[in-house]
Amino acid sequence: MTHAPNGILPEAIPFGTPKPRKEAFMVDFFQLLKRRRAVRDYEERPVPLELVLEIIKDSTLAPSSGNGQPWRFVVVNDRHWIRRLSDESKRNLVAAMDKDPDSPLRRYESVLRNEGFNVFYNAPCLVYIVGPGDVRSLQIDCALAACYLMFSAAARGLGTCWVAQGAAIADPETLRALGIPDGYRIVAPIILGYPKSIPGIPARSEPQILKVLG
Amino acid sequence: MTHAPNGILPEAIPFGTPKPRKEAFMVDFFQLLKRRRAVRDYEERPVPLELVLEIIKDSTLAPSSGNGQPWRFVVVNDRHWIRRLSDESKRNLVAAMDKDPDSPLRRYESVLRNEGFNVFYNAPCLVYIVGPGDVRSLQIDCALAACYLMFSAAARGLGTCWVAQGAAIADPETLRALGIPDGYRIVAPIILGYPKSIPGIPARSEPQILKVLG
Repeated sequence: MTHAPNGILPEAIPFGTPKPRKEAFMVDFFQLLKRRRAVRDYEERPVPLELVLEIIKDSTLAPSSGNGQPWRFVVVNDRHWIRRLSDESKRNLVAAMDKDPDSPLRRYESVLRNEGFNVFYNAPCLVYIVGPGDVRSLQIDCALAACYLMFSAAARGLGTCWVAQGAAIADPETLRALGIPDGYRIVAPIILGYPKSIPGIPARSEPQILKVLG
Repeated sequence: MTHAPNGILPEAIPFGTPKPRKEAFMVDFFQLLKRRRAVRDYEERPVPLELVLEIIKDSTLAPSSGNGQPWRFVVVNDRHWIRRLSDESKRNLVAAMDKDPDSPLRRYESVLRNEGFNVFYNAPCLVYIVGPGDVRSLQIDCALAACYLMFSAAARGLGTCWVAQGAAIADPETLRALGIPDGYRIVAPIILGYPKSIPGIPARSEPQILKVLG
């Protein structure tokens, strides 16, 4: 195993450097905690499929209820397809909003109605984490896999963002093209790409501890 | 910043070594990916509260829907309290099972009916991640915080386990003692402690990629 000089992320593992083999470098977790940021601005260059598959493999090390591993993956590594999925998701969300005046989607109304807006921020790669809708723990299991996926991607120099507005895919033909069976749910749409820049550490409230017993 | 020799987790950061200051050491993420395991066998010694609070603080670096940060925390750092919570949760789960012959809890029936069994595996510390039940993204947001919490704990030499069977707390007096307001839900009961041993890497299926587009 080779070590980067100093072994510390910011100097040794600049974001944007492709990392084909995960065993060949190390990344400090405590740096990663702060560097794993929602990225919404990506370089043009594509993400090698091999790298996406390694990251997906890492994500399956997540724990799941009863070790059920209900997660399944769809990789969309094509900007035209991603654009099409953005358009369909926006269309479905706008339709849902039009039916429900109290929809919580109202906060995103202006961007969802903006034809030019890509909910996936023109990222070059999108991974859908999906699973059978009748698995009671599906949301939590897939969220844990998504968390692993986002950490693994960040450790390899990629940016990610969980784009909840990209999950509203309903057209049967589109679902068939994505390989998503009937009865499955899209839990986590995660975009990946080489970041143009990494946002600073975001505003976070101090932890709210309701009680300490003992 | 000081570095451990070689900077690699298994040799440099033996599990079970208390780590009071997170800046004082580094932990390789790719090692952590494999070392973060569900631990169900703990040493007697307690977890310093200061360490638990640092881990909770790390967990709040997780992303959340609209940066809503709906997570709240209850720290139970007392074995007697943890035992009491285990007993109440088991009681409520058994009652739910008795009402529903098709309950998915049946797979845990024998342990839930075993008076001696502690769903929290006699761990010295329990953190409940909770939040307002009317937040639509609550389960996912709290699962992401839980994932961060489990990684941070593992990076500091602690074992964790998400114990879904420990969430069934309903007695108003108990909820009041835990500081959990009306309308809040317990999403993630996570136990923490110094592991007696770390289980090996578990069986994981190969990732099931439904489709690659592009």
